[in-house]
Amino acid sequence: MFRNQYDTDVTTWSPAGRLFQVEYAMEAVKQGSAAIGLRSKTHVVLGCVNKANSELSSHQKKIFKVDDHIGVAIAGLTADGRVLSRYMRNECINYSFTYESPLPVGRLVVQLADKAQVCTQRSWKRPYGVGLLVAGLDESGAHLYYNCPSGNYFEYQAFAIGSRSQAAKTYLERRFENFTDSSRDDLVKDAIMAIRETLQGETLKSSICTIAVVGVGEPFHILDQGTVQQIIDTFEIVAEQEGPDAAIGQEAAAEGAAADQGGSTDEGVAPMES
Amino acid sequence: MFRNQYDTDVTTWSPAGRLFQVEYAMEAVKQGSAAIGLRSKTHVVLGCVNKANSELSSHQKKIFKVDDHIGVAIAGLTADGRVLSRYMRNECINYSFTYESPLPVGRLVVQLADKAQVCTQRSWKRPYGVGLLVAGLDESGAHLYYNCPSGNYFEYQAFAIGSRSQAAKTYLERRFENFTDSSRDDLVKDAIMAIRETLQGETLKSSICTIAVVGVGEPFHILDQGTVQQIIDTFEIVAEQEGPDAAIGQEAAAEGAAADQGGSTDEGVAPMES
Amino acid sequence: MFRNQYDTDVTTWSPAGRLFQVEYAMEAVKQGSAAIGLRSKTHVVLGCVNKANSELSSHQKKIFKVDDHIGVAIAGLTADGRVLSRYMRNECINYSFTYESPLPVGRLVVQLADKAQVCTQRSWKRPYGVGLLVAGLDESGAHLYYNCPSGNYFEYQAFAIGSRSQAAKTYLERRFENFTDSSRDDLVKDAIMAIRETLQGETLKSSICTIAVVGVGEPFHILDQGTVQQIIDTFEIVAEQEGPDAAIGQEAAAEGAAADQGGSTDEGVAPMES
Amino acid sequence: MFRNQYDTDVTTWSPAGRLFQVEYAMEAVKQGSAAIGLRSKTHVVLGCVNKANSELSSHQKKIFKVDDHIGVAIAGLTADGRVLSRYMRNECINYSFTYESPLPVGRLVVQLADKAQVCTQRSWKRPYGVGLLVAGLDESGAHLYYNCPSGNYFEYQAFAIGSRSQAAKTYLERRFENFTDSSRDDLVKDAIMAIRETLQGETLKSSICTIAVVGVGEPFHILDQGTVQQIIDTFEIVAEQEGPDAAIGQEAAAEGAAADQGGSTDEGVAPMES
Amino acid sequence: MFRNQYDTDVTTWSPAGRLFQVEYAMEAVKQGSAAIGLRSKTHVVLGCVNKANSELSSHQKKIFKVDDHIGVAIAGLTADGRVLSRYMRNECINYSFTYESPLPVGRLVVQLADKAQVCTQRSWKRPYGVGLLVAGLDESGAHLYYNCPSGNYFEYQAFAIGSRSQAAKTYLERRFENFTDSSRDDLVKDAIMAIRETLQGETLKSSICTIAVVGVGEPFHILDQGTVQQIIDTFEIVAEQEGPDAAIGQEAAAEGAAADQGGSTDEGVAPMES
Amino acid sequence: MFRNQYDTDVTTWSPAGRLFQVEYAMEAVKQGSAAIGLRSKTHVVLGCVNKANSELSSHQKKIFKVDDHIGVAIAGLTADGRVLSRYMRNECINYSFTYESPLPVGRLVVQLADKAQVCTQRSWKRPYGVGLLVAGLDESGAHLYYNCPSGNYFEYQAFAIGSRSQAAKTYLERRFENFTDSSRDDLVKDAIMAIRETLQGETLKSSICTIAVVGVGEPFHILDQGTVQQIIDTFEIVAEQEGPDAAIGQEAAAEGAAADQGGSTDEGVAPMES
Amino acid sequence: MFRNQYDTDVTTWSPAGRLFQVEYAMEAVKQGSAAIGLRSKTHVVLGCVNKANSELSSHQKKIFKVDDHIGVAIAGLTADGRVLSRYMRNECINYSFTYESPLPVGRLVVQLADKAQVCTQRSWKRPYGVGLLVAGLDESGAHLYYNCPSGNYFEYQAFAIGSRSQAAKTYLERRFENFTDSSRDDLVKDAIMAIRETLQGETLKSSICTIAVVGVGEPFHILDQGTVQQIIDTFEIVAEQEGPDAAIGQEAAAEGAAADQGGSTDEGVAPMES
Repeated sequence: MFRNQYDTDVTTWSPAGRLFQVEYAMEAVKQGSAAIGLRSKTHVVLGCVNKANSELSSHQKKIFKVDDHIGVAIAGLTADGRVLSRYMRNECINYSFTYESPLPVGRLVVQLADKAQVCTQRSWKRPYGVGLLVAGLDESGAHLYYNCPSGNYFEYQAFAIGSRSQAAKTYLERRFENFTDSSRDDLVKDAIMAIRETLQGETLKSSICTIAVVGVGEPFHILDQGTVQQIIDTFEIVAEQEGPDAAIGQEAAAEGAAADQGGSTDEGVAPMES
Repeated sequence: MFRNQYDTDVTTWSPAGRLFQVEYAMEAVKQGSAAIGLRSKTHVVLGCVNKANSELSSHQKKIFKVDDHIGVAIAGLTADGRVLSRYMRNECINYSFTYESPLPVGRLVVQLADKAQVCTQRSWKRPYGVGLLVAGLDESGAHLYYNCPSGNYFEYQAFAIGSRSQAAKTYLERRFENFTDSSRDDLVKDAIMAIRETLQGETLKSSICTIAVVGVGEPFHILDQGTVQQIIDTFEIVAEQEGPDAAIGQEAAAEGAAADQGGSTDEGVAPMES
Repeated sequence: MFRNQYDTDVTTWSPAGRLFQVEYAMEAVKQGSAAIGLRSKTHVVLGCVNKANSELSSHQKKIFKVDDHIGVAIAGLTADGRVLSRYMRNECINYSFTYESPLPVGRLVVQLADKAQVCTQRSWKRPYGVGLLVAGLDESGAHLYYNCPSGNYFEYQAFAIGSRSQAAKTYLERRFENFTDSSRDDLVKDAIMAIRETLQGETLKSSICTIAVVGVGEPFHILDQGTVQQIIDTFEIVAEQEGPDAAIGQEAAAEGAAADQGGSTDEGVAPMES
Repeated sequence: MFRNQYDTDVTTWSPAGRLFQVEYAMEAVKQGSAAIGLRSKTHVVLGCVNKANSELSSHQKKIFKVDDHIGVAIAGLTADGRVLSRYMRNECINYSFTYESPLPVGRLVVQLADKAQVCTQRSWKRPYGVGLLVAGLDESGAHLYYNCPSGNYFEYQAFAIGSRSQAAKTYLERRFENFTDSSRDDLVKDAIMAIRETLQGETLKSSICTIAVVGVGEPFHILDQGTVQQIIDTFEIVAEQEGPDAAIGQEAAAEGAAADQGGSTDEGVAPMES
Repeated sequence: MFRNQYDTDVTTWSPAGRLFQVEYAMEAVKQGSAAIGLRSKTHVVLGCVNKANSELSSHQKKIFKVDDHIGVAIAGLTADGRVLSRYMRNECINYSFTYESPLPVGRLVVQLADKAQVCTQRSWKRPYGVGLLVAGLDESGAHLYYNCPSGNYFEYQAFAIGSRSQAAKTYLERRFENFTDSSRDDLVKDAIMAIRETLQGETLKSSICTIAVVGVGEPFHILDQGTVQQIIDTFEIVAEQEGPDAAIGQEAAAEGAAADQGGSTDEGVAPMES
Repeated sequence: MFRNQYDTDVTTWSPAGRLFQVEYAMEAVKQGSAAIGLRSKTHVVLGCVNKANSELSSHQKKIFKVDDHIGVAIAGLTADGRVLSRYMRNECINYSFTYESPLPVGRLVVQLADKAQVCTQRSWKRPYGVGLLVAGLDESGAHLYYNCPSGNYFEYQAFAIGSRSQAAKTYLERRFENFTDSSRDDLVKDAIMAIRETLQGETLKSSICTIAVVGVGEPFHILDQGTVQQIIDTFEIVAEQEGPDAAIGQEAAAEGAAADQGGSTDEGVAPMES
Repeated sequence: MFRNQYDTDVTTWSPAGRLFQVEYAMEAVKQGSAAIGLRSKTHVVLGCVNKANSELSSHQKKIFKVDDHIGVAIAGLTADGRVLSRYMRNECINYSFTYESPLPVGRLVVQLADKAQVCTQRSWKRPYGVGLLVAGLDESGAHLYYNCPSGNYFEYQAFAIGSRSQAAKTYLERRFENFTDSSRDDLVKDAIMAIRETLQGETLKSSICTIAVVGVGEPFHILDQGTVQQIIDTFEIVAEQEGPDAAIGQEAAAEGAAADQGGSTDEGVAPMES
């Protein structure tokens, strides 16, 4: 597709009032492997697809604990994500040291967004190329936020980001009305189901996904692989009966093709993200 | 439309004495979802259209409380708007701490404008891409200001910014002579009516608009959704009788088409603003 | 008109020894709505055309009080003008705090010019896009200066800047010999007459012009609208008899056409100035 | 291959959300001579191919001791690698001085990755052009990490980087399941075998490879050449019977051809790396 | 005329070893209205042509007093000249405060030249666009220097700079041998005569020229207009008999034409200088 | 030869993972006149070809004493080499002042390489254009290192750099196996012979080469011309019998031709190096 | 002549390893009027051609006293030369203040060269455009150095720089063998003769050359014009008999033609140098 002359510098506005470099950074989120989040009144569950470089390596960490009450799942440039989650960790430590109480989730999310905004207004920097799903529990309840490279953030009931996240979003939209009152275990199940939607033909195994939970009486932690596999086993038979959803597959393929412009996706994604 | 070589750098004047990059930043305001404001002698009401990314998310906050006596509604780059409203909040806190009285509205507006001006005169920055309607009450009465990316500000009786704001402006111009002596409730009604004008065929519901009020004896606060829906219900029947104004619809469509150059509007607005 | 490669950077000289970026900034003054000034031995009067964005807004302030003995009228980028007038205000406060006497007008004007010159010699800044008519009274009498974006300043008996200022200049040139000994009221009358010359067919009303006076025994202040309207009423009948000066109208039209290159004037002026 | 306009500046995103300059820096790793690493529960072995500039010089050092419990093997720009290993050495010294215990391997790896990330987000720097295999032993056992120019890092059971590393990776993948419980000596043998795979027809001699070990009771040290030659001698007869793997040879040749774009490989690699 | 690629950056040498940007800045001096200087053993006289923007303004000051024993006349960018003369004034004040004796003229001239040289060797500045004739009296006698944008300076018996200065130079060359022993009054007369040479058909009046004198027993001061007019009157009759020198007129016209490349001279000079 | 768009900025990677600007700086070494070094167990000898600008000048110094135990010979940009050797001198002084023992050679070489590496990673600098042969003696014996513009260094038994160094390298490779146990005097002889190889038809005289020695009991010093001539005289007769090696001559000529691209060699080398 | 893309930035290497911007700066030396130097065991004589801008000015100073024992003659950008000679003066004062002995000549020359080298390695500066002949006397005898824009320096028996210096060099080469033991007066004579060689048809007069001497018992000073004229008179008759050397004239003309590329020499030299 033809592009104009206003899209190589983050401090240059296009005539139509757009900042293309910020929008391109948001594309990097779409190139990352999928991450999802959903919450009830009392719990938030994060999930992501693990993508190992080879048999020889462990998969790259994409869910990070920030504090006992906050965790984050990322999609996009992993290095940017790691640097930002370290920033969040420091903010939490400093806050609880000063005020002797945990940093409210919404407050941390705003600080994170402000940090991202600065990178969209300096000619010698670049916007971060990572999206973050922030899960947290504080006095006002369980929260799920999405922080994006533009310096914006949104509160969600449930959300999915990264490559082929559309299928997961469709799944979540079909079911999100039940989430508020879901039990912790149902929430985990829905998280796994949503992840399965992004797998495009691959079989769901506990080794290719990571699930983390934070909730009332349960500090943020990543579920061990055995627990996840047990849950998968309970519903896997049902899933097979449904069969792969052909329509969604085509949609995802089209999305993948769009991502191809500029290089083959496999090569393109690999070096920077997983 | 063909553009010249003077429009990629904020510190470059065109031969005709224009700063295109500043004007382009003002386009970003037009791309944002609509915000309106209007005031009587004693009250100011702000309103905006909520645009949710999906069913799963809450809508993005576009009206911010700055202090008990000041609030702001934004259109354009939300991240820029949030950063600026935080700046305003800090200024208010510092002032009242030092002088033990609230910061006069006009004074805050000038400081905000000066901050915006700096970004139009440094090669390594960019103008803010957000317009702010500042509502406030101080010893000199109720005030409504509009701060724009160029570093200018204007005092208004009533104003509307953002996409399809022209229809709202037309409505406000037809009725603004009554506003000065309006009751607080009539003012709220007019605000909702003005917002409805920007909806282009969509049905007005309390879920898709936010209304905030500040006035004598009433600190700045956002009306809860139930209250707004009640008001909508009172006049919705009348509105349907009028029918959609075809002329305005065409005008807005033309405006939309102009905004299209550089990308499809829907795609263009989405990533950066709502 | 074809332009060369030396006109996009403020620190680049053209082969003929010109700084085009500075000249372009001076064009911005011509794009602003008109401002005029004139002085007698004891008084200086400033005047400007008010241009409201819409019925809904008050007009934008273009005349600023700097100190009891100094005021300023601007044409061009209003935000730049406001920032500079704030600078002047600070200089006056600091001076009178230190020396317990008002800052001499000529001295302030030089400081202002030096501040403007710096912006013509740094690659990461841009020249200010505003012209300032500085009116002041000090021990050496009444003064009227014009400060321009190039860092130059001039003392005037009477002057007009901004769009269609040529007609006002012609008027002032015809009559300036009487100004030195004019009474304060005659000076105000001449100011209003000069402003009328710039109105190109529009009817002169007190709502579309602002008049300010500083003089012996009279601190700088803006005349209230009623007073201005009374003066207008006294001579409006005479004016109508003269009829619009066709020759001047054509001249102004030609000037307007020249300003058009680079965009339609109406659109071009609006976003940045008024 | 044709490239686009987004690939000359490290702070410029491509429309598809990629940072080409970072990816190009990762190409530099592929241009360096091969380095491999593998680990058991108790030991980590690093190996690399020595490439001497001429008979007259010793080969260039590509394996560095960082501390008693940590060492590193590099591929790519040797100068960048040396500077980074010095950084690691300083971090280890400071940590053990402050805490009187050795710096945990994973912690050092994150600091190294953060340092690399900074170079991908400043317009006046460039990403490091070197990949590092970090071998270490701490309270949590033996570790092997790969740090890459993008600011990412991965934990591996076994890995190979640099030119013709694909053949070594294939070898390691065939055998890595045994590594966890391998004896220290078997691990060394496998390291040498993996290096031989990258030699494309050259005969394996102790003079053209370096092997280093760190493990329980064995501080990080480089094996002396005699020891390495003895090990080679034990299995060299077997190796000759296998004969050169034609398929791998072709693959490697293809890889070499790809690397050629932009200059002949031999010339290209020589000046910067070995 | 075609220009090469080495002339837009002050820190770029041309292949022939020239700095075009410095040379272009020297063109700015030629575009300014004329200034002349001449000296005897005991006196120095400066003169310049006043160019008023309109009837309404006083002419712009082009001769500045620096100290009791030093003054300066400028041609070129007036704002640059004013900033430099302020610098000179400060240097004089500091020197006499420290040493309790006036700053020697030659020393000030070197400092001024060094300040100009810096601007020819920094990529983010531009050379000053002004030439200065420095007149001074110190223990070593009366001095006349010319400081040019390149950072060079020259001592002169008599000199003329600015537009149409060639005619004045011709006059001065014809007569300079008498200057050393001229009386103060003869020197003033010659200054006025030299200025008349630059006037190309305009009639010499005291209102269009400024004359300043510094000498033994006579601090630097500008002659009042009456005195100048008296001197003009004494020789004006003779001048008219000579008639306009046709040859010089043609020469000046040719010079003017050369200056035209890049824009019409009248327009070009006006905005920046007078 | 056609070059690509990635070779004008030192912080820009090429798609194939190369830094062209660093490679180009390494070309500067090849353009310098030749320098050679060789070592036994106890001594290191440096030699270089002197190139005088004219009969009138002494030749330019290309061998520098750094400390009693270290010296350096350079090829390439002499000014860069001098600045770096001054840096080395300071490091030696500081070290021996602090530790009261001489700075180990290898340690100095690493510091030098790190200094060079920094210049390959900053957009506002350039890589050094000089290669350094560092000769030194410390507790671990005699050392010869080569430091190159890329920030790399190598330890050598013997090496030659600069124009026509290939012939010298061939000579050294034929004989280097004897060097370790060579006597100090044989080493000097071999140094002179190697230099003769680079002379392409010119007759070897003591005036056109410089020889320096450092070894056990012999601080770094340059041999006086008489001594060198005596050694030359001893073997010159033999040399003449061999005659010029035609093959090497052709090779060197080809190398010279390659160097020509971009300008004639004679002109190209002269201004910057000798 | 066609030039490549590597010659506009001082920090950009050409593929052949050249820094064109440094070479271009060296061209500026060739454009300056000639300067020569020669020395015996006890004396150094500097000479230069004076080029007055017009009859009205004194010639520009091109020989500067640095200290009692050091002086300098320049060719090229006079402003750069003056700034550098001021630097040298400061270094001499500081040294003699600290050590109570004169700064050795060679040491000052190295400091000067290092200062020049820095300007060849920063993107925001430019190389100095001036060559300096440094004459000095210290404990090691009389010295003559040439410092060039590249940061190199050379010791000479005799040398000539600037325009048409080739003729002077030829003269000096014919006679330099006698210089070491020349008397002070013979040295001065030879200096004058060498200067005459550069005059291309102009008659040698004391007014167009400056001669300076430093030697044993004779601090650096410029000879007064009378003395120089006397010497000229003694040999002028002989000179006329020889007649202008046609061959040299042609050579110089060719050189002049080469210098013309990029502009006519007369115009080119004038603005920046003399």
